[in-house]
Amino acid sequence: MDKASMQTTILAAKGRLDLSWAAIAERIGMSPVWTTSACMGMNSMPTEVADKLCDVLELPAEVSKALQAFPHKHWDKAIPTDPLIYRFYEMINVYGGTIKELIHEEFGDGIMSAIDFSMDISRVADPKGDRVQIILNGKFLPYRSW
Amino acid sequence: MDKASMQTTILAAKGRLDLSWAAIAERIGMSPVWTTSACMGMNSMPTEVADKLCDVLELPAEVSKALQAFPHKHWDKAIPTDPLIYRFYEMINVYGGTIKELIHEEFGDGIMSAIDFSMDISRVADPKGDRVQIILNGKFLPYRSW
Amino acid sequence: MDKASMQTTILAAKGRLDLSWAAIAERIGMSPVWTTSACMGMNSMPTEVADKLCDVLELPAEVSKALQAFPHKHWDKAIPTDPLIYRFYEMINVYGGTIKELIHEEFGDGIMSAIDFSMDISRVADPKGDRVQIILNGKFLPYRSW
Amino acid sequence: MDKASMQTTILAAKGRLDLSWAAIAERIGMSPVWTTSACMGMNSMPTEVADKLCDVLELPAEVSKALQAFPHKHWDKAIPTDPLIYRFYEMINVYGGTIKELIHEEFGDGIMSAIDFSMDISRVADPKGDRVQIILNGKFLPYRSW
Amino acid sequence: MDKASMQTTILAAKGRLDLSWAAIAERIGMSPVWTTSACMGMNSMPTEVADKLCDVLELPAEVSKALQAFPHKHWDKAIPTDPLIYRFYEMINVYGGTIKELIHEEFGDGIMSAIDFSMDISRVADPKGDRVQIILNGKFLPYRSW
Amino acid sequence: MDKASMQTTILAAKGRLDLSWAAIAERIGMSPVWTTSACMGMNSMPTEVADKLCDVLELPAEVSKALQAFPHKHWDKAIPTDPLIYRFYEMINVYGGTIKELIHEEFGDGIMSAIDFSMDISRVADPKGDRVQIILNGKFLPYRSW
Amino acid sequence: MDKASMQTTILAAKGRLDLSWAAIAERIGMSPVWTTSACMGMNSMPTEVADKLCDVLELPAEVSKALQAFPHKHWDKAIPTDPLIYRFYEMINVYGGTIKELIHEEFGDGIMSAIDFSMDISRVADPKGDRVQIILNGKFLPYRSW
Amino acid sequence: MDKASMQTTILAAKGRLDLSWAAIAERIGMSPVWTTSACMGMNSMPTEVADKLCDVLELPAEVSKALQAFPHKHWDKAIPTDPLIYRFYEMINVYGGTIKELIHEEFGDGIMSAIDFSMDISRVADPKGDRVQIILNGKFLPYRSW
Amino acid sequence: MDKASMQTTILAAKGRLDLSWAAIAERIGMSPVWTTSACMGMNSMPTEVADKLCDVLELPAEVSKALQAFPHKHWDKAIPTDPLIYRFYEMINVYGGTIKELIHEEFGDGIMSAIDFSMDISRVADPKGDRVQIILNGKFLPYRSW
Amino acid sequence: MDKASMQTTILAAKGRLDLSWAAIAERIGMSPVWTTSACMGMNSMPTEVADKLCDVLELPAEVSKALQAFPHKHWDKAIPTDPLIYRFYEMINVYGGTIKELIHEEFGDGIMSAIDFSMDISRVADPKGDRVQIILNGKFLPYRSW
Repeated sequence: MDKASMQTTILAAKGRLDLSWAAIAERIGMSPVWTTSACMGMNSMPTEVADKLCDVLELPAEVSKALQAFPHKHWDKAIPTDPLIYRFYEMINVYGGTIKELIHEEFGDGIMSAIDFSMDISRVADPKGDRVQIILNGKFLPYRSW
Repeated sequence: MDKASMQTTILAAKGRLDLSWAAIAERIGMSPVWTTSACMGMNSMPTEVADKLCDVLELPAEVSKALQAFPHKHWDKAIPTDPLIYRFYEMINVYGGTIKELIHEEFGDGIMSAIDFSMDISRVADPKGDRVQIILNGKFLPYRSW
Repeated sequence: MDKASMQTTILAAKGRLDLSWAAIAERIGMSPVWTTSACMGMNSMPTEVADKLCDVLELPAEVSKALQAFPHKHWDKAIPTDPLIYRFYEMINVYGGTIKELIHEEFGDGIMSAIDFSMDISRVADPKGDRVQIILNGKFLPYRSW
Repeated sequence: MDKASMQTTILAAKGRLDLSWAAIAERIGMSPVWTTSACMGMNSMPTEVADKLCDVLELPAEVSKALQAFPHKHWDKAIPTDPLIYRFYEMINVYGGTIKELIHEEFGDGIMSAIDFSMDISRVADPKGDRVQIILNGKFLPYRSW
Repeated sequence: MDKASMQTTILAAKGRLDLSWAAIAERIGMSPVWTTSACMGMNSMPTEVADKLCDVLELPAEVSKALQAFPHKHWDKAIPTDPLIYRFYEMINVYGGTIKELIHEEFGDGIMSAIDFSMDISRVADPKGDRVQIILNGKFLPYRSW
Repeated sequence: MDKASMQTTILAAKGRLDLSWAAIAERIGMSPVWTTSACMGMNSMPTEVADKLCDVLELPAEVSKALQAFPHKHWDKAIPTDPLIYRFYEMINVYGGTIKELIHEEFGDGIMSAIDFSMDISRVADPKGDRVQIILNGKFLPYRSW
Repeated sequence: MDKASMQTTILAAKGRLDLSWAAIAERIGMSPVWTTSACMGMNSMPTEVADKLCDVLELPAEVSKALQAFPHKHWDKAIPTDPLIYRFYEMINVYGGTIKELIHEEFGDGIMSAIDFSMDISRVADPKGDRVQIILNGKFLPYRSW
Repeated sequence: MDKASMQTTILAAKGRLDLSWAAIAERIGMSPVWTTSACMGMNSMPTEVADKLCDVLELPAEVSKALQAFPHKHWDKAIPTDPLIYRFYEMINVYGGTIKELIHEEFGDGIMSAIDFSMDISRVADPKGDRVQIILNGKFLPYRSW
Repeated sequence: MDKASMQTTILAAKGRLDLSWAAIAERIGMSPVWTTSACMGMNSMPTEVADKLCDVLELPAEVSKALQAFPHKHWDKAIPTDPLIYRFYEMINVYGGTIKELIHEEFGDGIMSAIDFSMDISRVADPKGDRVQIILNGKFLPYRSW
Repeated sequence: MDKASMQTTILAAKGRLDLSWAAIAERIGMSPVWTTSACMGMNSMPTEVADKLCDVLELPAEVSKALQAFPHKHWDKAIPTDPLIYRFYEMINVYGGTIKELIHEEFGDGIMSAIDFSMDISRVADPKGDRVQIILNGKFLPYRSW
């Protein structure tokens, strides 16, 4: 079972059981963002977590195996079209130089890791219209000289 | 004075006075991210804020005028190369589908605004190596039907 | 049922019943542009509207479900080829700078929303040849400073 | 004098005299959109109109000559980046298929002309936030068979 | 029946009956270029012409229906590879600026229509090797000012 | 003197003497299309023709030398944007397959030469609006087998 | 039978009969390069040659028909990846300007035909390692002036 | 002195002395193709050859130094436009698969070197029009297994 | 059996027998990198090695045949997305100019062969986290002059 | 002083003093690869190292400052053309999948860091022609789950 059919199977089970991502994540003891990304084939799950998720969603062992497989992360290299996703592409480009300035000023030469990294998404109530809040958290990695 | 020479002038003054972005931002009463982005030509400043920044950096009125001009936001449409910026491009592509799933589940059909939007960057101390934390905050905009 | 087969099913029913988009839109109490765009998979319908449309077109419940699904808006990122659509691409590029000038002059720094947005298409009789009139209407969103 | 330095000269004069595009357009008896587009080098002006514009802006004859020159309409063929302009690119792609459906249903096989074409931009007051309204108006051109 | 299978069906019938495009065009009273382009899915036929063509080629009514459908004109946006077609791409690029100069000199600001347009192809005998002659004929459309 | 400054010099002289391309072409005994293309740097002129053109336009010998130089034909490989030129790109793509069908049917396997090639542009009066007529004429070159 | 399945059929027969391209070419009285290119769908064969090839390879008449069909020459427009083919792309780019210089110096303005063209490939023994020799031979075509 | 101004200097001297590439190559005892390519900045010359060339062309020592510099071979990665060069791009793509078949059949798995490589260009007289002959000669390099 | 299904078959057998690439490589007496690359279709195996590998993995003769076939090396020409592979693309671009400087300084004008080439991958223990070490080894090929 | 003029200045001094990269690196106590990359603007130097390098090369303090600046790593995103660099691009694509297989087998899910990374280049004597050896060494970074 490859990652694509794994995702289809999980989405079907999730719909059948009428569970939100937050509910699934809570039952396996992980965060909603990481849980969703693994179910969409963009991260691999440790064995025990994958097994627990299959228990929660009443899915067979081959789904657990597919969840544990190391993904080949692949995406369309063109600019995204879906408006929700495009807006993030826009933010990065409008604020990319700013982020570089401020991280270098604070930490020196290096980068924020996209591997030793986590993300959280939440709703912030606001009388003028609720807001989406996303927290990106990554280890600072200094360049090595040798 | 266009946005490019405005940026050069501001960076030179900032170096001369040895001020950090955080210090400049504090003196004009705005956040460091927004202040930096306006100085890099990616946002426009209200008159009083632009004037105050020119006071702080001992710069002439034409810099204030350039800071107030509405920018034509422009970037290289190709995939970024600088490793610090590329990692953000990578995060968005690895987690783009996940973000879409979770925002739609919580808010319904719509997007997170990149216009009614703010961003914060901070250092999080960690014994295994300090971490960079970035908070994105945008208003949820539901699609209109008519 | 995905959006693509939903569209095929709706077009077949529309042909079988010999209904125009305008007629369908009127029966469900919505505009022709929005109705067509939802049937082509580019907008999601509220439950009651989707159900009414399935009534009008004598279609089963799974079509209604597909109409309610949040679309992943996707298109060929290249320049369009079909002459009817290309002309709109041409208009935007010939008049893009002009539109930016005039909106900023009137409203200040910000954008016209493509989310809180509506469109109408109509025929304008003209002795030298009838004309197509398209009205675009979107909320002005000012940039936030923080 | 080429179109680029013509545009710079006109913008400087417009700033000096503190005139809006709407005011300039009114004085030369043309619409604001067309007037702006000609000043930005995307349309050519008839001699008498160009001369009148130079009168209004107190500019020499060579500017009038540049305004009358037939432009080579040229733009960056990539996807636009400025958020204000990108949103129009997005609208066309989200609604392109819908526009094609509705024009063909109403007019038959053919296109809406981008040459025998006009555009208007206006503000629509709205208690929930004012709106931008853009009207596109083009002659329908049927395909010829021979 | 879509345009692609319509084309396959027509080519098979044309081969079976051993008819040239010129012969088919003559029997339906239209030109060879337009007839061929409609059979290749790049133009739509009026009902009576489509029916006549199906008579000539002994094809069922659904082929006539497909011939009448309004095409979505679509092509590979890249530079053509087939040498016969590439040479036309080369001609346009070598002579594009020349054509623009000469049409503007003769007609003023505007374009040659690709909609109100016809094309003819013929053989010109020549002792040094016969030649292909192609005539392009399109209505001049002046830009509108408003 | 390179081809670019040659073109500028010729256009200035042409304006100064107020001569049309047709008039210049007639005086040097060549066609308007070929004459224009050589002046725009896309063809090389034999010595005597180049000298005659410099006589007509009262230009120095170095212009004649530049006209005789073998050009490196170069163009922007992207899809053209100027509407007048784009329409030709559109024609070739809409009718490319048709042209291939008809040339092969008449001549067999081979191509129409873009080197042993000529082009003419003329105005065709029409009560419904005058038309542009362009004649392309190229030698048929059969593929060699060996 | 299209060119792709024709090629598969021929390669299978060639393997079954254990014939080299050189041996096949010799039996049909043509060169190995041209024979191979026609079997790979990049050239069309005259009837008698195609029939002879089908005799040699014990293939049915429909293969002969496919060999005679005029190909639509098509290839991936991107830079080739296979190292053997890439090296030829590299040679052309390293030596393209040199070839242009030397052909123009010897022949004047014009091109080397890719239609009235032949190619040969052979092995040249060399004690330091055998070498591949490829001969390209094309008619010089002078540009026409008119 | 960089390779670009070196090339300009050499071309000017070559014109002044009215020497062909063949004549220059003969005087320095190398082939015309290699000599031209080094003068165009695509190969580096050994010291004594570079000095001899500067003697022949009466050029100063800094040109010799530039000729000896190791070039960064660089070209426009897009498809070439100049018809003379494009035809070679076309040949490689039409015959690329054929070349791969025949080299592998004769030599096994490996490539023809573009580094241990030479090229010759000559005129072949032909009553139907003289022909250009180009010989490519490169060492066969087998893939290593380890 | 083509290279793609050969790879699938080998991976399935490898999983069934629970063998690492290192173990397989050792049993056939070759290196792990070369063995893996041949199994992934990027290199061809000599007959005896391919047969031995099929013995080890208990696979039929047609797999051996597929392993011996000369591959058409093909990859997505775009920038890689998978983070593990992207980092190598990044290294080459950050250090490409440096590598060129240092190889030319040491060896003169020429290249490091990618054909007469080998690669090794190993783990280097490190208390601050183990490291990956990759050794690239290729013959230096000097440019030929002629 | 920006990184580009810093590099020019350093290369000129290096030539004047006739020092190899290896010699310079030894005198500042760093490796040749890292030293070269910093001088080419692709890494930043700590203050004391930059000062020492300016001592060795007899360069002013502003060069030291430029060496310490955090670079914006930038490169042409297209496929490289220079044959020396292209071969590395080719290696990565031929062996990319293999590297991924072997690193994941040995280390689990994660990547080899391009930040905590070093590289060495050396000559390996070989009777059949000396070889280039390049060692890449990077910390393994496991993906985080949260």
